Amino acid sequence: MTPGNALDRLTALLSRLPGIGKKTAGRLAYHILDTDPAYAHSLASELDNLHDAIKRCSRCGAYTESDPCPICSDPSRDRALLCVVERAQDLRVIEESREYRGLFHVLGGLIAPLEGVGPGDLSIGKLASRIQEEGTRELILALNPTIEGDTTALYLQQFLKEKLKGSPLEITRLASGLPVGGDLEYADRLTLSRSFRGRIKL
Amino acid sequence: MTPGNALDRLTALLSRLPGIGKKTAGRLAYHILDTDPAYAHSLASELDNLHDAIKRCSRCGAYTESDPCPICSDPSRDRALLCVVERAQDLRVIEESREYRGLFHVLGGLIAPLEGVGPGDLSIGKLASRIQEEGTRELILALNPTIEGDTTALYLQQFLKEKLKGSPLEITRLASGLPVGGDLEYADRLTLSRSFRGRIKL
Ligand SMILES: [Zn+2]
Ligand SMILES: [Zn+2]
Repeated sequence: MTPGNALDRLTALLSRLPGIGKKTAGRLAYHILDTDPAYAHSLASELDNLHDAIKRCSRCGAYTESDPCPICSDPSRDRALLCVVERAQDLRVIEESREYRGLFHVLGGLIAPLEGVGPGDLSIGKLASRIQEEGTRELILALNPTIEGDTTALYLQQFLKEKLKGSPLEITRLASGLPVGGDLEYADRLTLSRSFRGRIKL
Repeated sequence: MTPGNALDRLTALLSRLPGIGKKTAGRLAYHILDTDPAYAHSLASELDNLHDAIKRCSRCGAYTESDPCPICSDPSRDRALLCVVERAQDLRVIEESREYRGLFHVLGGLIAPLEGVGPGDLSIGKLASRIQEEGTRELILALNPTIEGDTTALYLQQFLKEKLKGSPLEITRLASGLPVGGDLEYADRLTLSRSFRGRIKL
């Protein structure tokens, strides 16, 4: 390759990002090379810093720079509401909808037997403890409307009913608005607002 | 913002890349956070190294780790042929077509009066010297089939005819195959091969 290994190595690394093919990665690498070196150095510095600066909240599992995270530490949030999401990034899109003022819990995945992901791989025991300790009254399952999301919602419902027998916990799930088979992360503000308002009791 | 400034800063930097919107940048940043820190550190290290490792070839203007570049130094290349490209990255796509075995010259842009780019901003004087010193017999203009490409080709033809009066230099331009208004960088191997074979004399 003419431009040398440094460019090829950068291209190979960029092409490992989701949605970035080999051709796009090559164009990005050349663009970075064409741009002021200060940009490459800033990007490098943020990448080096990222995992040190951002940890998981020990309560909810969200990404945060402080522990507990700003949401868990916010006394104005409604602690009777607990919203369960698959991944930490789902939390941001819900926060941006400004529809919800309760707490969150990041499961860390969805039950997917074919991919070898079982209930034991998710933060479910922790969720049960939180519900008991924090006196949660409504658990809102904000899981993608996919087979894995449905399976996980059903499992959580059965597991928690058994585990928290006699508790007045209400379990709901975001429903109306989210396109079936879609991804929560791609939902717009309006769709999410509608999903929250139209949530159904499980 | 919940996940803290480190993630926001990385997202902002990524969204400055061409074709990467704010939403995509956010997803990429979260993906990097979800991935083993070793990936972020490798990417950071390549970015830091990039501009130090890769320079411009002092002869042809291509990106290279050694100077002169591997193409300029290769005794098996046909020195009678000189292919003129707009940008250094155009060189790679031509090399990958394996259609061409001559030398290259990177102009560093195209004449665009509305954007304030004139002939003096391009590597044109250097091109004339190279043609004389290296005894070029055919100059192949591999410029995008756009208004700027056409203007630059016309200018080069007139300038070099005047400058190299009496020289037997033949000037050709890639023609057949490249879609009008398109970008050389997006051309596939076959299209490029056809363009080389069907090049027209100016
Ligand atoms: Zn938290
Ligand atoms: Zn060179």
